[in-house]
Amino acid sequence: MSHSLDESLEFQPRWGADGLLTAVAVDAQSGAVLMVAHMNPDALAATLATGEAHYWSRSRRELWHKGATSGAIQRVVEIRVDCDQDCLLLLVEPAGPACHTGRVNCFYRRLDGGRLVML
Amino acid sequence: MSHSLDESLEFQPRWGADGLLTAVAVDAQSGAVLMVAHMNPDALAATLATGEAHYWSRSRRELWHKGATSGAIQRVVEIRVDCDQDCLLLLVEPAGPACHTGRVNCFYRRLDGGRLVML
Repeated sequence: MSHSLDESLEFQPRWGADGLLTAVAVDAQSGAVLMVAHMNPDALAATLATGEAHYWSRSRRELWHKGATSGAIQRVVEIRVDCDQDCLLLLVEPAGPACHTGRVNCFYRRLDGGRLVML
Repeated sequence: MSHSLDESLEFQPRWGADGLLTAVAVDAQSGAVLMVAHMNPDALAATLATGEAHYWSRSRRELWHKGATSGAIQRVVEIRVDCDQDCLLLLVEPAGPACHTGRVNCFYRRLDGGRLVML
Protein backbone atom coordinates (compact mmCIF):
# COMPACT_ATOMS: atom_id res chain seq x y z
CA MET A 1 0.00 0.00 0.00
CA SER A 2 1.47 3.33 -0.98
CA HIS A 3 2.46 5.79 1.71
CA SER A 4 0.64 8.52 -0.26
CA LEU A 5 -2.71 6.88 0.31
CA ASP A 6 -2.44 6.06 3.98
CA GLU A 7 -0.81 9.24 5.28
CA SER A 8 -2.07 11.71 2.69
CA LEU A 9 -4.54 14.44 3.57
CA GLU A 10 -5.73 14.37 -0.02
CA PHE A 11 -9.02 12.60 -0.50
CA GLN A 12 -8.33 10.10 -3.29
CA PRO A 13 -11.14 7.55 -3.15
CA ARG A 14 -10.08 4.21 -4.60
CA TRP A 15 -13.16 3.10 -6.47
CA GLY A 16 -13.23 -0.67 -6.86
CA ALA A 17 -13.32 -2.65 -10.09
CA ASP A 18 -17.10 -2.27 -9.86
CA GLY A 19 -16.77 1.53 -9.53
CA LEU A 20 -17.88 1.49 -5.90
CA LEU A 21 -16.64 2.22 -2.39
CA THR A 22 -17.85 0.26 0.61
CA ALA A 23 -19.72 2.45 3.07
CA VAL A 24 -20.34 1.45 6.69
CA ALA A 25 -23.02 3.49 8.46
CA VAL A 26 -22.70 3.69 12.23
CA ASP A 27 -24.89 5.45 14.75
CA ALA A 28 -23.10 8.71 15.53
CA GLN A 29 -24.10 8.53 19.18
CA SER A 30 -23.50 4.87 20.06
CA GLY A 31 -20.98 3.96 17.35
CA ALA A 32 -23.01 0.80 16.64
CA VAL A 33 -22.86 -0.52 13.10
CA LEU A 34 -26.20 0.00 11.36
CA MET A 35 -25.63 -1.25 7.80
CA VAL A 36 -23.10 -1.75 5.05
CA ALA A 37 -23.80 -0.41 1.58
CA HIS A 38 -21.95 0.95 -1.42
CA MET A 39 -21.38 4.31 -3.05
CA ASN A 40 -20.57 5.34 -6.58
CA PRO A 41 -19.30 8.87 -7.30
CA ASP A 42 -22.87 10.19 -7.71
CA ALA A 43 -23.93 8.75 -4.34
CA LEU A 44 -20.93 10.29 -2.61
CA ALA A 45 -21.53 13.65 -4.30
CA ALA A 46 -25.21 13.62 -3.32
CA THR A 47 -24.30 12.69 0.25
CA LEU A 48 -21.84 15.57 0.49
CA ALA A 49 -24.24 18.02 -1.15
CA THR A 50 -27.26 17.18 1.01
CA GLY A 51 -25.78 15.92 4.27
CA GLU A 52 -28.01 12.85 3.96
CA ALA A 53 -26.69 9.37 3.13
CA HIS A 54 -27.07 8.32 -0.49
CA TYR A 55 -25.92 4.93 -1.69
CA TRP A 56 -25.74 3.01 -4.95
CA SER A 57 -28.22 0.17 -4.87
CA ARG A 58 -26.46 -2.76 -6.50
CA SER A 59 -29.69 -4.78 -6.73
CA ARG A 60 -31.79 -2.00 -8.24
CA ARG A 61 -28.86 -0.40 -10.04
CA GLU A 62 -29.91 3.10 -9.08
CA LEU A 63 -29.00 5.97 -6.82
CA TRP A 64 -30.61 5.34 -3.44
CA HIS A 65 -31.45 8.21 -1.13
CA LYS A 66 -31.68 6.26 2.10
CA GLY A 67 -35.01 6.93 3.78
CA ALA A 68 -36.56 8.76 0.83
CA THR A 69 -39.50 6.34 0.85
CA SER A 70 -39.31 4.87 4.40
CA GLY A 71 -38.59 8.13 6.19
CA ALA A 72 -35.49 6.62 7.78
CA ILE A 73 -33.18 9.36 6.53
CA GLN A 74 -29.59 9.18 7.77
CA ARG A 75 -28.20 12.60 8.58
CA VAL A 76 -24.45 12.45 8.09
CA VAL A 77 -22.52 13.93 11.00
CA GLU A 78 -19.03 12.90 9.86
CA ILE A 79 -17.36 10.83 7.15
CA ARG A 80 -14.15 8.94 7.88
CA VAL A 81 -11.88 7.29 5.31
CA ASP A 82 -9.85 4.15 5.83
CA CYS A 83 -6.11 3.77 5.28
CA ASP A 84 -6.27 2.68 1.65
CA GLN A 85 -9.22 4.93 0.86
CA ASP A 86 -11.53 2.24 -0.50
CA CYS A 87 -13.97 2.38 2.40
CA LEU A 88 -15.94 5.12 4.13
CA LEU A 89 -17.30 5.18 7.66
CA LEU A 90 -20.43 7.31 7.91
CA LEU A 91 -21.37 8.60 11.35
CA VAL A 92 -25.09 9.18 11.02
CA GLU A 93 -28.12 10.25 12.99
CA PRO A 94 -30.83 7.87 11.75
CA ALA A 95 -34.43 9.07 11.64
CA GLY A 96 -35.62 5.46 11.69
CA PRO A 97 -34.56 1.83 11.27
CA ALA A 98 -31.58 1.20 9.01
CA CYS A 99 -32.84 -2.19 7.91
CA HIS A 100 -35.60 -2.76 5.35
CA THR A 101 -36.99 -5.38 7.78
CA GLY A 102 -37.80 -2.58 10.23
CA ARG A 103 -34.97 -3.49 12.58
CA VAL A 104 -32.66 -0.81 13.94
CA ASN A 105 -29.70 -2.40 12.17
CA CYS A 106 -29.11 -5.15 9.62
CA PHE A 107 -27.03 -7.41 11.88
CA TYR A 108 -29.78 -9.11 13.90
CA ARG A 109 -28.55 -12.70 13.55
CA ARG A 110 -25.44 -14.38 14.82
CA LEU A 111 -23.75 -17.45 13.43
CA ASP A 112 -23.79 -20.43 15.77
CA GLY A 113 -22.53 -23.82 14.66
CA GLY A 114 -23.37 -23.27 11.01
CA ARG A 115 -26.87 -21.93 11.74
CA LEU A 116 -28.18 -18.45 12.45
CA VAL A 117 -29.73 -17.36 15.73
CA MET A 118 -31.82 -14.22 16.13
CA LEU A 119 -30.31 -11.75 18.58
CA MET B 1 -34.74 -9.02 -1.51
CA SER B 2 -36.14 -12.46 -0.81
CA HIS B 3 -37.85 -13.15 2.49
CA SER B 4 -35.89 -16.39 2.76
CA LEU B 5 -32.62 -14.57 3.07
CA ASP B 6 -33.60 -11.93 5.58
CA GLU B 7 -35.67 -14.04 7.98
CA SER B 8 -34.04 -17.41 7.45
CA LEU B 9 -31.99 -19.10 10.14
CA GLU B 10 -30.06 -20.88 7.44
CA PHE B 11 -26.64 -19.44 6.79
CA GLN B 12 -26.56 -18.84 3.03
CA PRO B 13 -23.68 -16.44 2.41
CA ARG B 14 -24.20 -14.46 -0.79
CA TRP B 15 -20.72 -14.34 -2.26
CA GLY B 16 -20.32 -11.34 -4.57
CA ALA B 17 -19.42 -11.38 -8.24
CA ASP B 18 -15.81 -11.34 -7.04
CA GLY B 19 -16.44 -14.40 -4.84
CA LEU B 20 -16.14 -12.37 -1.64
CA LEU B 21 -18.14 -11.21 1.36
CA THR B 22 -17.49 -7.88 3.03
CA ALA B 23 -16.33 -8.30 6.63
CA VAL B 24 -16.44 -5.50 9.19
CA ALA B 25 -14.35 -6.11 12.29
CA VAL B 26 -15.47 -4.30 15.41
CA ASP B 27 -13.99 -4.31 18.89
CA ALA B 28 -16.10 -6.76 20.89
CA GLN B 29 -15.89 -4.59 23.99
CA SER B 30 -16.45 -1.08 22.64
CA GLY B 31 -18.26 -1.91 19.39
CA ALA B 32 -15.93 0.51 17.57
CA VAL B 33 -15.23 -0.27 13.93
CA LEU B 34 -11.63 -1.43 13.49
CA MET B 35 -11.35 -2.30 9.82
CA VAL B 36 -13.19 -3.50 6.74
CA ALA B 37 -11.86 -6.43 4.75
CA HIS B 38 -13.10 -9.30 2.61
CA MET B 39 -13.52 -13.04 2.94
CA ASN B 40 -13.61 -15.84 0.43
CA PRO B 41 -14.92 -19.26 1.44
CA ASP B 42 -11.44 -20.38 2.57
CA ALA B 43 -11.04 -17.31 4.79
CA LEU B 44 -14.43 -17.88 6.38
CA ALA B 45 -13.70 -21.58 6.92
CA ALA B 46 -10.31 -20.80 8.50
CA THR B 47 -11.91 -18.17 10.74
CA LEU B 48 -14.54 -20.63 11.93
CA ALA B 49 -12.00 -23.43 12.39
CA THR B 50 -9.46 -21.38 14.37
CA GLY B 51 -11.55 -18.66 16.06
CA GLU B 52 -9.10 -16.10 14.66
CA ALA B 53 -9.98 -13.70 11.85
CA HIS B 54 -8.78 -14.70 8.40
CA TYR B 55 -9.44 -12.54 5.37
CA TRP B 56 -8.77 -12.66 1.66
CA SER B 57 -6.20 -10.06 0.73
CA ARG B 58 -7.38 -8.56 -2.53
CA SER B 59 -4.07 -6.77 -3.11
CA ARG B 60 -1.84 -9.78 -2.41
CA ARG B 61 -4.42 -12.30 -3.68
CA GLU B 62 -3.82 -14.66 -0.79
CA LEU B 63 -5.38 -15.94 2.38
CA TRP B 64 -4.51 -13.52 5.16
CA HIS B 65 -4.36 -14.68 8.77
CA LYS B 66 -4.71 -11.30 10.42
CA GLY B 67 -1.86 -10.75 12.86
CA ALA B 68 0.18 -13.78 11.75
CA THR B 69 3.18 -11.52 11.12
CA SER B 70 2.33 -8.42 13.19
CA GLY B 71 1.03 -10.28 16.23
CA ALA B 72 -2.24 -8.34 16.06
CA ILE B 73 -4.39 -11.46 16.01
CA GLN B 74 -8.15 -10.87 16.17
CA ARG B 75 -9.90 -13.44 18.35
CA VAL B 76 -13.43 -13.79 17.06
CA VAL B 77 -16.04 -13.62 19.81
CA GLU B 78 -19.12 -13.56 17.58
CA ILE B 79 -20.04 -13.37 13.90
CA ARG B 80 -23.20 -11.58 12.81
CA VAL B 81 -24.76 -11.69 9.35
CA ASP B 82 -26.65 -8.88 7.66
CA CYS B 83 -30.15 -9.09 6.21
CA ASP B 84 -29.15 -10.09 2.69
CA GLN B 85 -26.24 -12.23 3.88
CA ASP B 86 -23.54 -10.53 1.83
CA CYS B 87 -21.79 -8.96 4.79
CA LEU B 88 -20.41 -10.23 8.10
CA LEU B 89 -19.84 -8.32 11.31
CA LEU B 90 -16.98 -9.79 13.33
CA LEU B 91 -16.89 -8.98 17.03
CA VAL B 92 -13.23 -9.43 17.87
CA GLU B 93 -10.76 -9.10 20.69
CA PRO B 94 -7.72 -7.58 18.97
CA ALA B 95 -4.25 -8.43 20.31
CA GLY B 96 -2.88 -5.27 18.69
CA PRO B 97 -3.58 -2.49 16.18
CA ALA B 98 -5.96 -3.36 13.36
CA CYS B 99 -4.29 -0.99 10.91
CA HIS B 100 -1.01 -1.70 9.12
CA THR B 101 -0.02 1.89 10.02
CA GLY B 102 0.06 0.87 13.68
CA ARG B 103 -3.14 2.72 14.51
CA VAL B 104 -5.85 1.04 16.55
CA ASN B 105 -8.25 1.25 13.61
CA CYS B 106 -8.11 2.18 9.94
CA PHE B 107 -10.48 5.15 10.16
CA TYR B 108 -8.13 7.85 11.49
CA ARG B 109 -9.02 10.61 9.03
CA ARG B 110 -12.22 12.52 8.50
CA LEU B 111 -13.38 14.26 5.38
CA ASP B 112 -13.65 18.02 5.72
CA GLY B 113 -14.44 20.21 2.73
CA GLY B 114 -12.89 17.86 0.21
CA ARG B 115 -9.71 17.35 2.27
CA LEU B 116 -8.80 14.87 4.99
CA VAL B 117 -8.06 15.79 8.58
CA MET B 118 -6.28 13.48 11.03
CA LEU B 119 -8.45 12.62 14.03
